[in-house]
Amino acid sequence: MKQGLKITVIGAGSSYTPELIEGLIARRTELPIRELWLVDIEEGREKVNIIADLTRRMLQRHDMAHVDVHVTLDRIPALKNADFICSQFRAGCLEGRIRDERISMKYGMIGQETNGLGGFANACRTIPVTLDICKEIEMYCPDAWLLNFTNPSGMVTEAILKHTQVKAVGLCNVPVIMQKGVARMLNCDERDVVMQVAGLNHLIWARQILHDGQDKLQWVMDEILRGNDLLVPHNIPPFDWPEKLLRQMGMIPCAYLRYYYTSQDMLEQELGEADGEGTRGEVVKAMEKRLFDIYRNPELSEKPQELEKRGGQYYSEAACELMSAIYNDKRTIMHVNTRNNGTIAGLPDDCAVEVSSVITRSGPLPLNVAPFPEDTLRLIQLMKSYESLTVEAAVTGDRNAAHRALILNPIVNTGTILEAALDETIQANLDYMPQFR
Amino acid sequence: MKQGLKITVIGAGSSYTPELIEGLIARRTELPIRELWLVDIEEGREKVNIIADLTRRMLQRHDMAHVDVHVTLDRIPALKNADFICSQFRAGCLEGRIRDERISMKYGMIGQETNGLGGFANACRTIPVTLDICKEIEMYCPDAWLLNFTNPSGMVTEAILKHTQVKAVGLCNVPVIMQKGVARMLNCDERDVVMQVAGLNHLIWARQILHDGQDKLQWVMDEILRGNDLLVPHNIPPFDWPEKLLRQMGMIPCAYLRYYYTSQDMLEQELGEADGEGTRGEVVKAMEKRLFDIYRNPELSEKPQELEKRGGQYYSEAACELMSAIYNDKRTIMHVNTRNNGTIAGLPDDCAVEVSSVITRSGPLPLNVAPFPEDTLRLIQLMKSYESLTVEAAVTGDRNAAHRALILNPIVNTGTILEAALDETIQANLDYMPQFR
Amino acid sequence: MKQGLKITVIGAGSSYTPELIEGLIARRTELPIRELWLVDIEEGREKVNIIADLTRRMLQRHDMAHVDVHVTLDRIPALKNADFICSQFRAGCLEGRIRDERISMKYGMIGQETNGLGGFANACRTIPVTLDICKEIEMYCPDAWLLNFTNPSGMVTEAILKHTQVKAVGLCNVPVIMQKGVARMLNCDERDVVMQVAGLNHLIWARQILHDGQDKLQWVMDEILRGNDLLVPHNIPPFDWPEKLLRQMGMIPCAYLRYYYTSQDMLEQELGEADGEGTRGEVVKAMEKRLFDIYRNPELSEKPQELEKRGGQYYSEAACELMSAIYNDKRTIMHVNTRNNGTIAGLPDDCAVEVSSVITRSGPLPLNVAPFPEDTLRLIQLMKSYESLTVEAAVTGDRNAAHRALILNPIVNTGTILEAALDETIQANLDYMPQFR
Amino acid sequence: MKQGLKITVIGAGSSYTPELIEGLIARRTELPIRELWLVDIEEGREKVNIIADLTRRMLQRHDMAHVDVHVTLDRIPALKNADFICSQFRAGCLEGRIRDERISMKYGMIGQETNGLGGFANACRTIPVTLDICKEIEMYCPDAWLLNFTNPSGMVTEAILKHTQVKAVGLCNVPVIMQKGVARMLNCDERDVVMQVAGLNHLIWARQILHDGQDKLQWVMDEILRGNDLLVPHNIPPFDWPEKLLRQMGMIPCAYLRYYYTSQDMLEQELGEADGEGTRGEVVKAMEKRLFDIYRNPELSEKPQELEKRGGQYYSEAACELMSAIYNDKRTIMHVNTRNNGTIAGLPDDCAVEVSSVITRSGPLPLNVAPFPEDTLRLIQLMKSYESLTVEAAVTGDRNAAHRALILNPIVNTGTILEAALDETIQANLDYMPQFR
Repeated sequence: MKQGLKITVIGAGSSYTPELIEGLIARRTELPIRELWLVDIEEGREKVNIIADLTRRMLQRHDMAHVDVHVTLDRIPALKNADFICSQFRAGCLEGRIRDERISMKYGMIGQETNGLGGFANACRTIPVTLDICKEIEMYCPDAWLLNFTNPSGMVTEAILKHTQVKAVGLCNVPVIMQKGVARMLNCDERDVVMQVAGLNHLIWARQILHDGQDKLQWVMDEILRGNDLLVPHNIPPFDWPEKLLRQMGMIPCAYLRYYYTSQDMLEQELGEADGEGTRGEVVKAMEKRLFDIYRNPELSEKPQELEKRGGQYYSEAACELMSAIYNDKRTIMHVNTRNNGTIAGLPDDCAVEVSSVITRSGPLPLNVAPFPEDTLRLIQLMKSYESLTVEAAVTGDRNAAHRALILNPIVNTGTILEAALDETIQANLDYMPQFR
Repeated sequence: MKQGLKITVIGAGSSYTPELIEGLIARRTELPIRELWLVDIEEGREKVNIIADLTRRMLQRHDMAHVDVHVTLDRIPALKNADFICSQFRAGCLEGRIRDERISMKYGMIGQETNGLGGFANACRTIPVTLDICKEIEMYCPDAWLLNFTNPSGMVTEAILKHTQVKAVGLCNVPVIMQKGVARMLNCDERDVVMQVAGLNHLIWARQILHDGQDKLQWVMDEILRGNDLLVPHNIPPFDWPEKLLRQMGMIPCAYLRYYYTSQDMLEQELGEADGEGTRGEVVKAMEKRLFDIYRNPELSEKPQELEKRGGQYYSEAACELMSAIYNDKRTIMHVNTRNNGTIAGLPDDCAVEVSSVITRSGPLPLNVAPFPEDTLRLIQLMKSYESLTVEAAVTGDRNAAHRALILNPIVNTGTILEAALDETIQANLDYMPQFR
Repeated sequence: MKQGLKITVIGAGSSYTPELIEGLIARRTELPIRELWLVDIEEGREKVNIIADLTRRMLQRHDMAHVDVHVTLDRIPALKNADFICSQFRAGCLEGRIRDERISMKYGMIGQETNGLGGFANACRTIPVTLDICKEIEMYCPDAWLLNFTNPSGMVTEAILKHTQVKAVGLCNVPVIMQKGVARMLNCDERDVVMQVAGLNHLIWARQILHDGQDKLQWVMDEILRGNDLLVPHNIPPFDWPEKLLRQMGMIPCAYLRYYYTSQDMLEQELGEADGEGTRGEVVKAMEKRLFDIYRNPELSEKPQELEKRGGQYYSEAACELMSAIYNDKRTIMHVNTRNNGTIAGLPDDCAVEVSSVITRSGPLPLNVAPFPEDTLRLIQLMKSYESLTVEAAVTGDRNAAHRALILNPIVNTGTILEAALDETIQANLDYMPQFR
Repeated sequence: MKQGLKITVIGAGSSYTPELIEGLIARRTELPIRELWLVDIEEGREKVNIIADLTRRMLQRHDMAHVDVHVTLDRIPALKNADFICSQFRAGCLEGRIRDERISMKYGMIGQETNGLGGFANACRTIPVTLDICKEIEMYCPDAWLLNFTNPSGMVTEAILKHTQVKAVGLCNVPVIMQKGVARMLNCDERDVVMQVAGLNHLIWARQILHDGQDKLQWVMDEILRGNDLLVPHNIPPFDWPEKLLRQMGMIPCAYLRYYYTSQDMLEQELGEADGEGTRGEVVKAMEKRLFDIYRNPELSEKPQELEKRGGQYYSEAACELMSAIYNDKRTIMHVNTRNNGTIAGLPDDCAVEVSSVITRSGPLPLNVAPFPEDTLRLIQLMKSYESLTVEAAVTGDRNAAHRALILNPIVNTGTILEAALDETIQANLDYMPQFR
């Protein structure tokens, strides 16, 4: 097996990167790294340099000074012969995210980076860049694995799977947080519980929670209804699932399903926040500023605790574990975005789904998913059509596909208001969405 | 073949009944009627008597005085050995409809008698009564055909098909108006065009418009985009389909699809009307009052022109044509609500769909429906799950089923607001929805 | 509507043609023919001339001398601006059929012109010629309707639908005979009964037999079990369906299903006949010789009774009725081979199925088919895979597709014997199957 | 976790049992056994006692004398509080198997214990007994796992899953042999290769063979075509797959698929053997006699090498590995018969399929199976219908279901011959098939 891995991080100027470095350090005996390439664009030059310095200090501290850390704005040398590529960039930066939020709310809709109109805009900015990167991967490192946690992770992964030959896996921290929360509830090692999730990115349900020969799903549901919020990401404010909703479903929805099951409440909460502390994007922007002030400190050689509040916790740990599982053929069960291929009945074979999979050296082998109850399936199918049409619009710039996508989304308002909101979205993003010109 | 038919009308005190009578008169040579039973409930006693008098005058005028016209508040004698039963009652009367509209709007949702929260409420009031009637039919006239145009016609028909042995067909005037409009656009006899529709009640699309060996659908679409509104019921205010929406669909949506494709506009229009001339139910109530004043006139022996404005035009003509098509094995192609049985791929076999069918003496034989484009299918599937769960809730009084139904409906707001709106709906209707007690 | 039709018959030297002429004469008031083009190939020159003379005498006798009868070996002028084309040729003539029978039997298999190895060989000879004809139709008469009753009718129709733009309908006399038999059993006019059939060509079942408001299927089944053989073509020797087989099926299989349900008996019967009076092809060859001796008689100006024994009875009547139903937009329910498009659930959309359809000026609109019981569906699906792979092999000459097709067919023996039988079939037919060179 | 397991073997008088004991000994550190119950019926009394003595000697030799070995003809005490139950009995003994073979061949059909008419007979003898055992398990050890390797393993497992609450897994050595053969071809440890199989028992295909990050399926196929027979069970005589068949399939069929892909050769080979050395059952009977003569030897305290020739090699090893994987939550990927639940698209959810699964303490979690090519799927679907109807017939004694099952099976001859063969089968087995009385 190959020794001396080359790992490339696209969008390395992200404030998450120290977590990724921490994960690589923790796995240094199982993931023998030789080169680490930190890539960003001109706008991120300062940030990626701060990250690189911190990275070197962290590696130094853990006797990993032998790892070559490269910083570059040029992707080609970074990709050449890479073994793993972590994609974690944000097309249009946080400003793009904030703009999405504000435009959506202006038209009375939820504004969010992966859902509704905001998710659509984000996909249309991100997918063209991602496909460019993939063309380079096909040329310079066709055997590399691309670990995508660039949002909207499900649609981006679908675009890669449909339009390139790249070996890609999409990641998200939502199921990771659920898995860790369940293990803590059960007071057991994470590896002793098989929590099977299925659905689409940010639209998953835990279908079974196997521990010690029994399905503990009902018990976990009871815990949640008693107020246990261990399964909810830090960046999501506290809330309660309606008991009857959970009971009748017989599955545990991820926290993002609040956007669909309690959409009016979410909208009102968002509008309130936007008038107060700012939108989520604005809050994150301020947080990022504080984090980089901390990262700059030449005394710092560990991931600072403040990062955990950032919301993406475990993202990078998931990436490190996935790299190790592939490299070491570990057969770990992880929750990833991959080609459906019949896993979820009722969805096209070639779409991306987020499902629990056995990770092998050849990539993920999804576990079979028992048929969903009809009503839940209908929501998943509807959202997948929204996603696939969004991917089509993002690739082709077909405004009709965009319109058909958005009409289907339950948290998008339809009618003349949608025409206006879509126009404004495209106009405001034209530099990042040349396909719509 | 049997001579001397017995026709029974449930909810005969409706202001539509004169149109039905006119239709029977027009078909007097092909539909040999001997008895006509007009049935209503205590609240409708005055109205049904007015209708009965007018009916007798109309029959008299057309040399049909030999037809026995019975008025009764007791369904049993009316059903005994009936050949055809027309169901056209409104559970909870117009007051129920108005209440539905007002509650929906109070919670920021579209209030409408067949869609969204209003459609749900209407189904829950109507289905228990309908199933009672069906039990009587099974006992007193098991061979009779039940023609249902009681709203929500699709869900009521589904309840009958799933829970009784009654031979039932659901009817709606929406496709009838489309068919007549198309024939007028094409300047041809209605019988020379085959317009195939498919979908669910109030959620249909014209899939092909065959005339003179060609599919004229694109031409009709052009007409509509030029402003031709012949396909739109009178009771729906003028509006324009967005050109790109229609073009990308490649099918012609019925006017009710505005509630989904332009839902924000519809909501605003409704809220405006509610503050002005009143809700649709309130407008109809005033109109009904005026109609009955006209019907009372002992000189009147024809259906008055004013009735046409009522919105339900052609409803009764469709019923008469359907009775004649069955009785005479006419093989006419009509648009009816019937058991899916594979007609629309992707929906359960046992649900009700609204599809173009050949009418035989054994009832409707649906024409095969070409597979729908994926995005449209997703909307149909979602709405069918809403409908089937609503039927389940209406039959069992299961509040969870009610909640699951409403969560799926795109024009229903979800979250705490939905809990409140559902509570208020059930409380306000408790007399008509004993199943929820 | 166009007056003065041009009808072209490909393979007009067939002994069936007088029946076709009789049918056209019978419909002379509804099908205004101006030109009749009789086309054949060099090998059929003598026969087509005999037919042409007889045709002229028949037309003369019925005051239709105004119809121009052309005989030609050149398809192009015959196709130019044709309105209807009847395809009824036999690629490789009767000698090809006989060879198929003898090769199949040599390897211990049923030898038959539309089933098993023989059906495969026939398809591979016929489909290339048919596609050539279709290319000419696309060029010289793109609006014409092609009525195919060249065997194997289902596979030939599928090849046309998949590989050309021609408006084609496949015909077979099997359902016609069933329909007529049912009407005689019920002692009613054929038009008063709706017998719905569904399946593939020579693999259909009657699903319902509606008459006078009731489904008479069980009654008809009782008749069949009492020995009534009115539903069986003349060319099929008498046989009895096992009662329990029929009862458990709840549908009425066409006579050709004996090849699957009682295959061993059929094989033994065929082997016996081959040693006695000769194979079916040999019997037909002798019969044809006798028929042409009769046709030659210059006194003959009517279809001779002897033709009825030929087996294909009603074939041509079906063709004439179909032409009239299209031309006059009659909405008759006929049983035709057409694009599946969802009609039979569980089969691909783009394959050909044989189903009862409403015939309009725009062609057939199939009636929806209720889902088949699982075991019957499995047989249909298997046979359709055999058919579609055969069509693929016939078009591409891919020997692997041929092998995969034959392996699936239940009346084909697999193993080294199949390799040998397939080799011999291809070698013996190489002049007619250049695609396999 | 529970210490001191109780393991019960039903049909322990089988000549395979020493292999099972060997497997338990090999896993003594991971499977802490306290009690071993060997159960048989009166006819097997002598054999089970010989086995018990040998078992004790084997345990003694490996310092496992602390394990209590019980022999009994009474299932109840053996089942009480059992942890694992291995079912490996043969209803009707080898005489039944031989009778099945001889009857099938008499009617010109392949005679085999799991396929065709023989498989049907075996299922009808075995399933009633199995369901009786399951009723006892439900009562006396409802938490136990039942490991079924009683043949026909797929149908028996389906009967258990459909008609009982027992936690059951069906096993077969065919995929185990394939897996071991592949590992030897690749010259690697068995655990380093993921060979995914899917299909039905004795009707599986290897879909991918993942090793070192690549799919080696094509390479393995090349090996097989070069004559490598490592994937073929010892009890199957040497044979060659036709190269083109394998290539066109793109999957590796298990050796039992020869019965379908080369059925005529198999029949001829069987008929030859039956006239020579005897049928497979007769050969096994002689072999068993020799084995028991060896087992009797009081000096013997190891599994004798002769057992390997018996055909069922690795059967018992698979059982031991499965027990350990469940007990230790090992997450091993094994090939088992379990509920389909959407794993193989196109088959009912509630049927049994044989698929590669991750084994957890809660039982098997099947890996998703990529959609099969259409033609292969059709064969699987057909065979599943045969299996499910056979299970129905075995449970209900419905002769119609039996007939419908057999008609579908490609290696069963249909017609009067089938009626006779079925009659004879039922008559000859009436003592073991009381359900058909």
